[in-house]
Amino acid sequence: MAEPEDHPTAIYLKSDTTKPGDPMKVIINGLAQDMKALWWEEDHIRFIDQRKLPYSLEYFNARTVEEAAFAIKDMVVRGAPAIGVAAAYGMALATVTGMDVDTAHEMLGATRPTAHDLFHAIDILRNAIGQGKDAVQVAKDYAIENDERCRMIGEHGAYLIPEGGSVLTHCNAGALATNDYGTALAPMRAAHYIGTKFFVFVDETRPRLQGRLTAWELTQEGIEHRIIPDNAAGYFMKKGEVDLVITGADRVTRNGDAANKIGTYEKALLAKENGIPFYVAAPASTFDLTMKSGDEIEIEFRAQKEVLEFQGNNLFGEGEEALNPAFDVTPVEYITGFITEHGVFKPEELERLFERF
Amino acid sequence: MAEPEDHPTAIYLKSDTTKPGDPMKVIINGLAQDMKALWWEEDHIRFIDQRKLPYSLEYFNARTVEEAAFAIKDMVVRGAPAIGVAAAYGMALATVTGMDVDTAHEMLGATRPTAHDLFHAIDILRNAIGQGKDAVQVAKDYAIENDERCRMIGEHGAYLIPEGGSVLTHCNAGALATNDYGTALAPMRAAHYIGTKFFVFVDETRPRLQGRLTAWELTQEGIEHRIIPDNAAGYFMKKGEVDLVITGADRVTRNGDAANKIGTYEKALLAKENGIPFYVAAPASTFDLTMKSGDEIEIEFRAQKEVLEFQGNNLFGEGEEALNPAFDVTPVEYITGFITEHGVFKPEELERLFERF
Repeated sequence: MAEPEDHPTAIYLKSDTTKPGDPMKVIINGLAQDMKALWWEEDHIRFIDQRKLPYSLEYFNARTVEEAAFAIKDMVVRGAPAIGVAAAYGMALATVTGMDVDTAHEMLGATRPTAHDLFHAIDILRNAIGQGKDAVQVAKDYAIENDERCRMIGEHGAYLIPEGGSVLTHCNAGALATNDYGTALAPMRAAHYIGTKFFVFVDETRPRLQGRLTAWELTQEGIEHRIIPDNAAGYFMKKGEVDLVITGADRVTRNGDAANKIGTYEKALLAKENGIPFYVAAPASTFDLTMKSGDEIEIEFRAQKEVLEFQGNNLFGEGEEALNPAFDVTPVEYITGFITEHGVFKPEELERLFERF
Repeated sequence: MAEPEDHPTAIYLKSDTTKPGDPMKVIINGLAQDMKALWWEEDHIRFIDQRKLPYSLEYFNARTVEEAAFAIKDMVVRGAPAIGVAAAYGMALATVTGMDVDTAHEMLGATRPTAHDLFHAIDILRNAIGQGKDAVQVAKDYAIENDERCRMIGEHGAYLIPEGGSVLTHCNAGALATNDYGTALAPMRAAHYIGTKFFVFVDETRPRLQGRLTAWELTQEGIEHRIIPDNAAGYFMKKGEVDLVITGADRVTRNGDAANKIGTYEKALLAKENGIPFYVAAPASTFDLTMKSGDEIEIEFRAQKEVLEFQGNNLFGEGEEALNPAFDVTPVEYITGFITEHGVFKPEELERLFERF
């Protein structure tokens, strides 16, 4: 599979509405504006409130570490890389508000157990603060590097999408999930910017319907897509209507097993069975070399009401109970390749990727 | 696999609250009452309105063929065997209201394309009416025979459920879907009545959440269960927490391919991959010997709004579009056996089953 040097680096070309390496577009009052999932403003973090999308574009401000932890836990922001950026800024809030750094580290680390980026980010910030560095600046640099990694994922992955082809994606691994560009959506953005015409099957992704976020991002960019029930992914794959699958990941272990949003394992198996390439798009910060395999990954179980209720309405009748695992692990056998900021790697090439870390 | 003669026919045993071959129970004002999904009353059909369950127990009356056709199309009643019973009574309504029998046949036949029982039932009624028989009585007999077939499916399938085990089911193939007993749920009812303790994973079954109907039936019977997102079925199978899968079918072709609710194919593949037996429970009326394989089955696409809206609320933002195939086809390679009123048959034993038709 191609290394960075195997294809042009300036893959983004000017189109009518975009320029190379453009960040996420949000249409506000009919105008496309550049925006990230979250950013630092003077003395606080400002988030697009993803709980409200696509119904309304609202913002959430975190002025304390508690508020930053709440934003991560309640999924104001979600997606492993964006959680990492939020956690970095959350650590910066500790220095701004005078909270003990270890307390902040513990509070932010207790929000969501599966995303590796979270722990990666808070460790970097604690070390930097220990060395007397400006935490806000370190967090800003973390965000810039994060975004650049995602932009590079797009650059390397764009050429995998064939002209006239169709891509299936699960959950939202877009700019909203990564602060900018996306992981799984970065190659789609980049392919769109260079003029490739393609179609996206958007898994709705129960229980939290993150497909609404993916659809929203694709609509902002003008990329053709349709939402499908998670149950229908196999139908379209078996019909030969899906050319490739790209998803993000919350944690990839040393052997290449990938934890991602619940249901990813099912889609990966379906892809394998139907001879469809299945790619995991993830930056280096998502790889956890301390874990040998996916068996070691802790899977978060979330509240039953995420399954049982919608907008406060009970879906299944009074007294019913649910089980709600938030992630599953896709064994490396089902994964065709990993799209990273360093290029696209087959599972058997992963050790070569790790040498660059 | 066992034939009827291989195990006792009186498999239902008296328990504290049930007696052998008990029909569906519905708890009304704290009392368990026997009820069917639909029945004939004097000059009309009375349905449990399944669009309203589990939020409220309401009834829908069809006094004309048009109203019966509406009830099938709008899913007041759903599930292949129950649709068959509704269509039989719908044909009887033609004779009661004086509608031309061929017109009624055409109108009812145009409601839902995938369920084989529908066409089976309206053909039987048209022939009987042509022979001058009492259509209401023929439809009642059709319902009685239908229910008896489902009761026998329970009797033959009950012994497949191990003490302390767990079963996963998709959609609702319960009494509501079959008029009484169920197909997939019939073995669970029967196992429960003979005192087997087991647990049911109930797939929520997007987009129409028929898991709410399965959960409702299991709650009425007092069978332990939890609702899971469709995306989580693979997680629990991979963890070794599922002992067997039982689903219904809308149409089974000569080679054993089975059309059923969208997502069934995904669950069958997951079961195969994880070494879990996958059973299809269906009466003879669901087998279509005129079709060689699942490739010939027409798959109904239903309205986008079933995916995009819930109780009138938009889930995915204005202007978003969806694709909504209602069924998929599970290839016979993934099917361990068929639970029928004549016993349990492996795919390679199907021709022996067909000899009995």
